Amino acid sequence: MTQKSVAKTEGPESGSEPDLLVISAPEHDASAYHLTGFLAPDAVIAARVEGRTYLAVSSLEYGRAKRQAAVDELLSYDELGIRELARELGGGGSVLAAAAADLLKKLGARSVTVPPNLGVVHADELRRRGVEVEPGGAYFAGLRRAKTEREVGYIEEVQRATEAAVALAREVLSGSEVLKDGTLVHEGAPLTSEGLRSVIDVDLLRRGFHASGTIVAGGPQAADPHERGSGPLRAGETIIVDVFPSSAKSRYFADMTRTFVKGEPSDEVRKMYRTVLAAQERALESIRPGVSGREVHRAVSEVIHAAGYKTLLHDQRPGEPLTEGFFHGTGHGVGLELHEGPSLGTQDTELLPGDVVTVEPGVYTPGLGGVRIEDLVVVTESGLRNLTDFPKSFDSAIV
Amino acid sequence: MTQKSVAKTEGPESGSEPDLLVISAPEHDASAYHLTGFLAPDAVIAARVEGRTYLAVSSLEYGRAKRQAAVDELLSYDELGIRELARELGGGGSVLAAAAADLLKKLGARSVTVPPNLGVVHADELRRRGVEVEPGGAYFAGLRRAKTEREVGYIEEVQRATEAAVALAREVLSGSEVLKDGTLVHEGAPLTSEGLRSVIDVDLLRRGFHASGTIVAGGPQAADPHERGSGPLRAGETIIVDVFPSSAKSRYFADMTRTFVKGEPSDEVRKMYRTVLAAQERALESIRPGVSGREVHRAVSEVIHAAGYKTLLHDQRPGEPLTEGFFHGTGHGVGLELHEGPSLGTQDTELLPGDVVTVEPGVYTPGLGGVRIEDLVVVTESGLRNLTDFPKSFDSAIV
Repeated sequence: MTQKSVAKTEGPESGSEPDLLVISAPEHDASAYHLTGFLAPDAVIAARVEGRTYLAVSSLEYGRAKRQAAVDELLSYDELGIRELARELGGGGSVLAAAAADLLKKLGARSVTVPPNLGVVHADELRRRGVEVEPGGAYFAGLRRAKTEREVGYIEEVQRATEAAVALAREVLSGSEVLKDGTLVHEGAPLTSEGLRSVIDVDLLRRGFHASGTIVAGGPQAADPHERGSGPLRAGETIIVDVFPSSAKSRYFADMTRTFVKGEPSDEVRKMYRTVLAAQERALESIRPGVSGREVHRAVSEVIHAAGYKTLLHDQRPGEPLTEGFFHGTGHGVGLELHEGPSLGTQDTELLPGDVVTVEPGVYTPGLGGVRIEDLVVVTESGLRNLTDFPKSFDSAIV
Repeated sequence: MTQKSVAKTEGPESGSEPDLLVISAPEHDASAYHLTGFLAPDAVIAARVEGRTYLAVSSLEYGRAKRQAAVDELLSYDELGIRELARELGGGGSVLAAAAADLLKKLGARSVTVPPNLGVVHADELRRRGVEVEPGGAYFAGLRRAKTEREVGYIEEVQRATEAAVALAREVLSGSEVLKDGTLVHEGAPLTSEGLRSVIDVDLLRRGFHASGTIVAGGPQAADPHERGSGPLRAGETIIVDVFPSSAKSRYFADMTRTFVKGEPSDEVRKMYRTVLAAQERALESIRPGVSGREVHRAVSEVIHAAGYKTLLHDQRPGEPLTEGFFHGTGHGVGLELHEGPSLGTQDTELLPGDVVTVEPGVYTPGLGGVRIEDLVVVTESGLRNLTDFPKSFDSAIV
C-alpha cells in the first residue's frame, strides 16, 4: 500500500492532500526526516505545497542538503531573509516560523497542516502572520504508517542485528556459573544488568546500530515494565531483556523482548511464562487488515484474565493505578519512531497492510518478577509476516 | 550562582517566579527532566505552581517515579481522569493538556509559562480550556544556564571520557601506515572514517556514554562542518574529529573537536591550523562574566579575517550562503542539551558564572579541507576554567 492511499484514509481532508509545514530538527523529528529525506541536528523548515516539497536550511547545512535531500526545491535561510527577520523580532517570537510564513505566502498557501508537536512558539508566530495552522496528528501518523518494502527492509536489518545481540546475551547467561548465594558469575566477574546491557549495546554499535534504554531487569526489578535493571543477576529469577535499537544510517527502529531464566524456574514463573506465550500467540493469530488494535488487545487480555491474572481491561479501577498482572498495551507501531501508530491497546484504529507493530503482552508480579515476550510483525494483505526470528518456547527461555 | 538568580535575570516576570507547565517525554526534553529529576520515554505532565513541583505519570511509570522523581507531589494519570478525558475528546485534541488544565485549575494557576517547543496540540487544548499559555524560551533556557557544581561535575565526567576516546583515535591514526596512494592502513585493514568513528563510539559506550553523530571527516569532506565523514582516510589531509557524547546516567553532554594530520601537512594546512588556534586562544582570553557572546565571536572573527579568510561577520552577503572561511558560530552552551544557551555568535546575551560553553572556531576551504579546534569551558567569577585537557598545539596535531 502506498503512502498516498494511507494519507487519504487518515488525512483531515479526505480526497485532497493538505499542504504541510514542519519546523524541527530532522534527527529528532520523524516528520521532518520523512518529508525531506534529510538528516540534520538543527531545525529546518520543511513544507509540502500542492504536492511539491520544499526544504530550507542554514548555510551550514546547505552543501550537504544539496547532495542528500530528496525535495523538489532547496532554499537557504539567507534567501529567506532570516537575518533581517531576526533583527525585526529581536529574539522574541520564532524567526523560523516568520520565514516559513513568508515562504508559504509566496507559494500561495494560507492554511497548513502541522505535526501536533510543532512548537507553540512557531504556531503562535505563524498565526500572528495570518497562516492558518491545523495540528494534524492523525494525518502525519498516517503518512508514516503503512511501510514501503524498502522501509520494511530497513526495519528487518535492525531486527536481525537485535536478534544477534540478544543471542549473544543469551550465550553469556548460558555460559555463566551460579554461586551458592544464587548470583551469576561470568568469566570470573559478577554478572550484572549493567554488564549484560553493555554486551548487547556494544555488539549493536559495532554493527552500526544505536541502542538506548536497553532493559536487562532481573527478579523483582522485572516486575516494573520500564525499569532498566541494575545490580547482580540471579538464578531462578525471570530476566527480561528488551532491546529496541535504531540504525545509525536509516534511522529505523526494531524492537524485541525475551525473558530468560538461569537454572530452575519456580512453578509460578512457569505459569507466568506459559500464559504470556499463549496470549502472544493468540494475538498473532488475530492480526490481519481490518482488525482493530483494540480487538487484538482484548484477545490478549482475555487469555491473561482466564489464567487468573489482573488486566487493565478487567480490573482497572478509576484513580487506582494497576501495578500487577497485565497493565500496559499489547503493542505499538515501529518505524522512524520507536512508538508510532497504530497502537494495539484501547484505540479503534484498524490495521492496514504495511503496518509494522510490536506484539508484547506481559505479566508482572510485584516482589517476584515479570515475563514479557515481544515480536515485531508486518501486517500483510492476508494476515501478518513475523519479522522476528528468535526462539520463544519455554524450553528456549531456560538458559 | 543559583538557578533562582538566573531565573530572575532571564525570566519574563523579573522579581517573581512564573508558574510553569511542561508536557513531554523527559528522555527527549531537557525541561521536563530538569524540572522533575525523572527520566521516562513517554510524555509526562510536569508543573511548578507557587514554587511547588508536580509530576503526573502513567500507571506504567508510577512505581519508578515514586522512587526516582524529585518533586513535591506525584500523581497518576488515572487520578487525573485521563480515561474519561480520552473518551470525551475521542482521540482529537490533547488528552494530557486537558488533564493538565484540570490540574492547574485545582491548583489555582490560570496562566503558565511553557517551553517554546510545547506541542501546538497541547497549547491549543490548554487555551480552549481557559489556561493562558505563554511561551518562555528565555525563561526555561535561563533555568538551565548557570550550572551547579554538581552539574559541572557531570559534564566533566563526560568530557574525561570524550578525551579518552579521542586519545584512542589519535593512537590508531598514529599507529597506522601510509600506502603509496596516501590511504591509511591500520592492523592490515584500510582505515576509514567509519572505522575510526566506531573506535571512538564503542570506547565511549563501554564507559557508559552515548555518542551519536560523531564526526570523523578527512580531506575535502572536512570542508563541510556538518559532514560526518565516510570512506578511506588519507595522509597529508586534515582529519576533523568532533565528539559530543552524553552520559547514559546523568544525561549531560560534553563536546570536543580536534583536527589531526597524518604525515606532512601542506603550508596552507599549517596556516589554517595556526589561524584557528590563535583565534581560539583569543576567544578563551576574552571570556568572563559580563562579556557578550557576540563580543567573543567578534574577537574570533577578527583574527580569522586578519589572516585573509572570509567570515560571516566580514563577508556575508544577503541571499548568498557563505561556504568558505569561518561560517558558523563560535560556540554554544552545553548541558542536558548539546546545544543550549548561551550562544557565542550574533546574540547579545552576557555570560554568567556557571555558563558552560564550547569555543570552536574553524576555517574551511572547499576542495581542500577544514580545521576546527573546540574546547569546553565553564565561566567563573573571574574568567573561565577550561574543562578540556587535551593537547591542541600544531605539533600535537601531527600524528
